[in-house]
Amino acid sequence: MKFDEIIDFRGKHTSKWDTMEKNLGVAPKDGLAMWVADMEFRQPQGMIDAVKRAADNALFTYFGDAGDYNASIQWWMRERHGWAVDEKAIFTTHGLVNAVSMCLEAYTSPGDGVVIFTPVYHAFARVIRANDRRLVECPLAIRDGVYQMDFTAWDAQMTGTEKMAILCSPHNPGGRVWTRAELQGMADFAKRHDLILISDEVHHDLVYPGQKHIAMPLVDSSIANRLIVLTATSKTFNVAGMHCGNAIIHDEGLRAAYAKRIHQLSVSPNSLSMHMTPALYSPEGAAWVDELTAYLAGNHRLFLDGINAIPGLRMMPMQATYLAWVDFSGTGMMREEFAARVAGDAKIAASPGPVFGAGGESFLRFNIAMPRVRIADAVERMQRAFGDLQ
Amino acid sequence: MKFDEIIDFRGKHTSKWDTMEKNLGVAPKDGLAMWVADMEFRQPQGMIDAVKRAADNALFTYFGDAGDYNASIQWWMRERHGWAVDEKAIFTTHGLVNAVSMCLEAYTSPGDGVVIFTPVYHAFARVIRANDRRLVECPLAIRDGVYQMDFTAWDAQMTGTEKMAILCSPHNPGGRVWTRAELQGMADFAKRHDLILISDEVHHDLVYPGQKHIAMPLVDSSIANRLIVLTATSKTFNVAGMHCGNAIIHDEGLRAAYAKRIHQLSVSPNSLSMHMTPALYSPEGAAWVDELTAYLAGNHRLFLDGINAIPGLRMMPMQATYLAWVDFSGTGMMREEFAARVAGDAKIAASPGPVFGAGGESFLRFNIAMPRVRIADAVERMQRAFGDLQ
Repeated sequence: MKFDEIIDFRGKHTSKWDTMEKNLGVAPKDGLAMWVADMEFRQPQGMIDAVKRAADNALFTYFGDAGDYNASIQWWMRERHGWAVDEKAIFTTHGLVNAVSMCLEAYTSPGDGVVIFTPVYHAFARVIRANDRRLVECPLAIRDGVYQMDFTAWDAQMTGTEKMAILCSPHNPGGRVWTRAELQGMADFAKRHDLILISDEVHHDLVYPGQKHIAMPLVDSSIANRLIVLTATSKTFNVAGMHCGNAIIHDEGLRAAYAKRIHQLSVSPNSLSMHMTPALYSPEGAAWVDELTAYLAGNHRLFLDGINAIPGLRMMPMQATYLAWVDFSGTGMMREEFAARVAGDAKIAASPGPVFGAGGESFLRFNIAMPRVRIADAVERMQRAFGDLQ
Repeated sequence: MKFDEIIDFRGKHTSKWDTMEKNLGVAPKDGLAMWVADMEFRQPQGMIDAVKRAADNALFTYFGDAGDYNASIQWWMRERHGWAVDEKAIFTTHGLVNAVSMCLEAYTSPGDGVVIFTPVYHAFARVIRANDRRLVECPLAIRDGVYQMDFTAWDAQMTGTEKMAILCSPHNPGGRVWTRAELQGMADFAKRHDLILISDEVHHDLVYPGQKHIAMPLVDSSIANRLIVLTATSKTFNVAGMHCGNAIIHDEGLRAAYAKRIHQLSVSPNSLSMHMTPALYSPEGAAWVDELTAYLAGNHRLFLDGINAIPGLRMMPMQATYLAWVDFSGTGMMREEFAARVAGDAKIAASPGPVFGAGGESFLRFNIAMPRVRIADAVERMQRAFGDLQ
């Protein structure tokens, strides 16, 4: 099985392995990197071949004619998500955090409230704060052991000065695939409070067999005038380091404001990413993703069972993504203690929960996109590190 | 000779060849692309190998540990330019136009005057206007047939509301390598009018044998508190499509403002560029550049002689770059006529002079970074297209 291959990333300038000791105190020598959201898997061979072909043809020069690139995005969204994307709606971005930042600058002003649903991908709060917008954290509820939307509570938090909300769909961390009813609730929430809605769907391809992601534009066409959808090959195909994604904007007014920011900042895609994308958004890429999601679902089952066998630890069951969310509150330990056991005893680098915002205090996030044998190793390390609780 | 190799770029998604017909009406079938500032040369083999090695090692993930990357930049600046760069001064940008835009946003406000010395690289005016700054065009003088600085005239243009000046060094178009005295004049001009000085030195490596580029920081240390230097591997090694460059900022105050903008926009370098740079800024890369500049100087001589043999045409003699600047005013033709002869009769795509600002009206810019045999072809085409003037 291709995803079983162990690739040694150490000493090759990856953020995940080569900055782990500095950031989390876990040495790569005998540690396990389960933090940064890259996968330990080789990318699809067709894309690797496309890169080598570009290199052999001296194609490091300015890219031109995005026709095939756009067509491949349209094909993928139609085939995989049943979503018809207008070519004019596609804006290539320098990665999706940059896209969020561009949206903040294009559609809000300093001091405006920007809503996120926490715990959630930590970069949202970082760019909201960096751009001097007011961070509004609406906490997700936990019901039946998983995150749920909580519109009644959130309605009460709104003050009329909020201008934007950022949804993570599927959700990171914890891997919820939102239902159509929940997404309709979010659309209504955005309308009710007159919010621009950024739907970050970067994990849309990484849903487990039997689950179904619904693209936000398919939920409620009446929010098209306030909706920006973010997508990318980055998480799906393990190419996040290329910093290439898309803001998909069907409304002409929203599009004009975004185009103005792109023009002001002169951000254009790097050529290799443009050559890679059609090789990824292809039938071969689709088959690769189908194998991947089945493999991730297997990793999920193994890690879930292994973690939940440890008294006091509780992992949220996931429907998508490879970012597992483990609650340590049942151990009765202070945050410093369980974090020290994971980093120091298990020698696992995991992402600290508090950076994901309110509600993340007692959690760590574990990246399970690695060969199955390493998941088994991680489970063993965790069971040993918390063995006294057995 | 490696630079003699003819590479067919047609139909491979390059801006230079695949958007030429749409933009300039020159069909790639029998046309010559001499506009977009890419070279028709293969990149250094060591860099191509580095890209393939990265691809084979799945290194499309988030980059970490820029130590080797920064060290290679420091090595190159010291070895090739006698310039000691502090590692803390290095900010990686998403290309240099983006860097200019970031500087505009970090150091000026809407309405502030921003000075450029025209005719000059057209993207400067574009981003200044896009960011609602006031474009101040200070015309270069032509003396002894080449561009010269004209501080007396420029002093008279200043109103006290200008906040920034952007120098292109060496100069594009026309390929002047500014002398120490001229650069000192520019430093004095910046001080006299209290301007932040952006020194775009992207062509610093492309100086012809016998010429010497002087990095702005080596001219006058007293302007360090107002100086940002822009450099990149992009033009030197024909990798502009990767959109990776550097803003080098030695002053701590300037650095803080730039870092804030980077943080707000969340612009980080793409991983392949980070892997490529140490392979380029290397002894192998240096030898490649030495061969390249000798080859470009030969192209320059051939094109200069060929163009200047046509009555009414006059090409500026160059000391650097591959961007030749040809004045058609001596033909007595209207712009439409000489442009139509070049595009329609010679079937050469050249860059229209007016986009370079005041003083460019009667010019076309020709990119001579291509195999020598194509330069000879271009000369023949031009001599035929203007044959009635012989």
